[in-house]
Amino acid sequence: MLTVAEAIGAILDEVKRLPGTRVPLNDALGQVLTEEAISDLDSPPFDKSLMDGYAVRSADVTSGLKHLRVVDEVMAGQLARRPVEAGEAIRIMTGAPIPLGADAVIPVEQTHLNAGDRETVNLVIEPANVTAGKNILRRGASTLKGTRVIPAGRLLRPQEIGALAELGKAEVAVNRAPRVVVLATGNELVPIDEIPGPGQIRNSNEPMLLAQLRKMGAVSASLGVARDDPADLRNRVQQGLAHDLFVLSGGVSAGELDLVPGVLAEAGVRNVFHKVRVKPGQPVWFGVAERRSAPQAASNPALCYVFGLPGNPVSSMVCCELFVRPALRRMMGIDPAIPESVRARLTRQHFNGGNRPTYHPARCVPSDTGFIVEPVKWAGSADLCATVEANAMALFPVGEQLYEAGTLLDVFLW
Amino acid sequence: MLTVAEAIGAILDEVKRLPGTRVPLNDALGQVLTEEAISDLDSPPFDKSLMDGYAVRSADVTSGLKHLRVVDEVMAGQLARRPVEAGEAIRIMTGAPIPLGADAVIPVEQTHLNAGDRETVNLVIEPANVTAGKNILRRGASTLKGTRVIPAGRLLRPQEIGALAELGKAEVAVNRAPRVVVLATGNELVPIDEIPGPGQIRNSNEPMLLAQLRKMGAVSASLGVARDDPADLRNRVQQGLAHDLFVLSGGVSAGELDLVPGVLAEAGVRNVFHKVRVKPGQPVWFGVAERRSAPQAASNPALCYVFGLPGNPVSSMVCCELFVRPALRRMMGIDPAIPESVRARLTRQHFNGGNRPTYHPARCVPSDTGFIVEPVKWAGSADLCATVEANAMALFPVGEQLYEAGTLLDVFLW
Repeated sequence: MLTVAEAIGAILDEVKRLPGTRVPLNDALGQVLTEEAISDLDSPPFDKSLMDGYAVRSADVTSGLKHLRVVDEVMAGQLARRPVEAGEAIRIMTGAPIPLGADAVIPVEQTHLNAGDRETVNLVIEPANVTAGKNILRRGASTLKGTRVIPAGRLLRPQEIGALAELGKAEVAVNRAPRVVVLATGNELVPIDEIPGPGQIRNSNEPMLLAQLRKMGAVSASLGVARDDPADLRNRVQQGLAHDLFVLSGGVSAGELDLVPGVLAEAGVRNVFHKVRVKPGQPVWFGVAERRSAPQAASNPALCYVFGLPGNPVSSMVCCELFVRPALRRMMGIDPAIPESVRARLTRQHFNGGNRPTYHPARCVPSDTGFIVEPVKWAGSADLCATVEANAMALFPVGEQLYEAGTLLDVFLW
Repeated sequence: MLTVAEAIGAILDEVKRLPGTRVPLNDALGQVLTEEAISDLDSPPFDKSLMDGYAVRSADVTSGLKHLRVVDEVMAGQLARRPVEAGEAIRIMTGAPIPLGADAVIPVEQTHLNAGDRETVNLVIEPANVTAGKNILRRGASTLKGTRVIPAGRLLRPQEIGALAELGKAEVAVNRAPRVVVLATGNELVPIDEIPGPGQIRNSNEPMLLAQLRKMGAVSASLGVARDDPADLRNRVQQGLAHDLFVLSGGVSAGELDLVPGVLAEAGVRNVFHKVRVKPGQPVWFGVAERRSAPQAASNPALCYVFGLPGNPVSSMVCCELFVRPALRRMMGIDPAIPESVRARLTRQHFNGGNRPTYHPARCVPSDTGFIVEPVKWAGSADLCATVEANAMALFPVGEQLYEAGTLLDVFLW
């Protein structure tokens, strides 16, 4: 049986980045840039005032002049009509270009005007505090024309969106967001708003997986519930295979009604692995198919990646985090495709046993000396309510062991 | 001038939670639950098999029986038609209810059938490994009926969405998402896809702020650009005041064309503060107005909260994080309203000076012994490109000081 690392490796051997697309900048948040962003201008494009005040010649001030003649004023978006000569100042607003001749800005708070006289400004600043360049952002101080400001492959956050705007990118090249569908399977499932009858449970996997996938950046939709009936399942599998990624839950373990692997094989999905040494989630299934009704070049057919997740809700949740997430990140162009874990210290003694590594729901918080982690009370793969108290999963390796408080564990933040 | 803490306190004295609404569960991700979620059933609602295999009487196995008669089979969603008597087993699938009489499940992997005979199961399990309760999740082991599974006020993540589904909540009560508009002001602004003329810059604040607000959970839209013209600004301010929150950028410093405070006052916005001792972002403005064209009860008018952010892009970004974010969190019902900072150790010596605390763009990453933080090269409030290398802001207090490597700083993750 594959280890978790081998299974993730097998997934990433198969999964390819989706083709790129161009979107308006305002729609690009959370997507991955596919081309580097180069500055087309110096930024700022001119020497710029950082304050409201007076543009002056610093030598005038350091030589002791206390009163300067105000010869013009300049707002953001304007240019001064004349240069600053010896003994002169130009009133200037934040963001406005520094007039010729001036090399410093005296903030308005360090000046005053005599009543009725706007033509002489009196300085109340210590001359030693005025040096060439004071309160001026030099042309190109932020970025020079031709600088690579954002590398290709960057996940776009608000600061990149702002910087791309500054660089003139009203549209940007990004990876297309993966289109994912979720299909829950099983005769035992009833809709959320019904009272389960004997032996039945509500279909919690569908909304949970839709939310997980959406949070990971996919466009997710539901294909409803497939009953344990080959014809029904076949029909919905055909619909699922028309998407970039197809996530099924339930029907993949060793039971006689676990129809999913057979129906997927019959539909032409090539199985890459079935079963991974992991707790919870051992029966997880992964395969690849040519995408149905996709525009295809014969040499490069569009693919649909298919995950069969075990039906117990915490198994579904954990397998989605461990296996589907790296696939989605690869499709979206996020590098590294495998999310980084953190190391965290156990807050208290914890016993873990078994012949599979356990991903235990846990609460992980930062401290001044590193993350600390506490496993939550958890009754196993069907105990979804326990995960509500968790924000992470803590990895306990194979084998029976008493872990002492303070042990460093690998923790995967949700 | 207010300190940052005083300004945030003044904001939270004013800002109220938005009224609640009900949404379909699939639309609730990232919103805040306004009523506690109580379990309406034991979960699981019956003793449930955790494996595919055979439901047995554990006493039969421990007493040494190796062959059991298979008298029925039960799938998930079904009930067994008869109990398990001494010497008998019932074939059972994962998730199916445990038949009467049985108290353990032997996994299928630890059994075999003789060719052609499905009526006798041969056990290959060590009898000592079979105890009452083995591979069974007891009714209520996850949650008992009447338990509070999720408290009111919880931000909904995928695990809460799954748990709410299990609890039968097809619709949930959440806080309404705040509707926010952004208005950039200034004659110097040109559209993103234009080449700025002399003294002009591209309007980067609008897409950046829209992205920040969206990331914080608001529904954000733009009101375009207001020129430094009172009539234009007045008209757009009226539109802005029809929303839950109204964010302006530019026009709030001491310059003569800084029309925003005057026009807001004239429009009936009550100013709460103007200027905060902070770098970047000192001119920030905050006020409250009655919401235009909102359905109002005279005793409890709907409000619009108004932020005037300084126009330099890093000032806008930092003030949005420091001041707008707590307001939005309060409106959304997120507790605590003030996002938590982390403590991080400086990677290298850093000098910081000035009479205002500085929120310096920085790169902060976890390590086994706590977060470490490195300030990025930053030319000041107009240097937006620097923030592209940052994922946080590091707080340096007032005063000139050389901070040694290893100094613990408060860091605010973006």
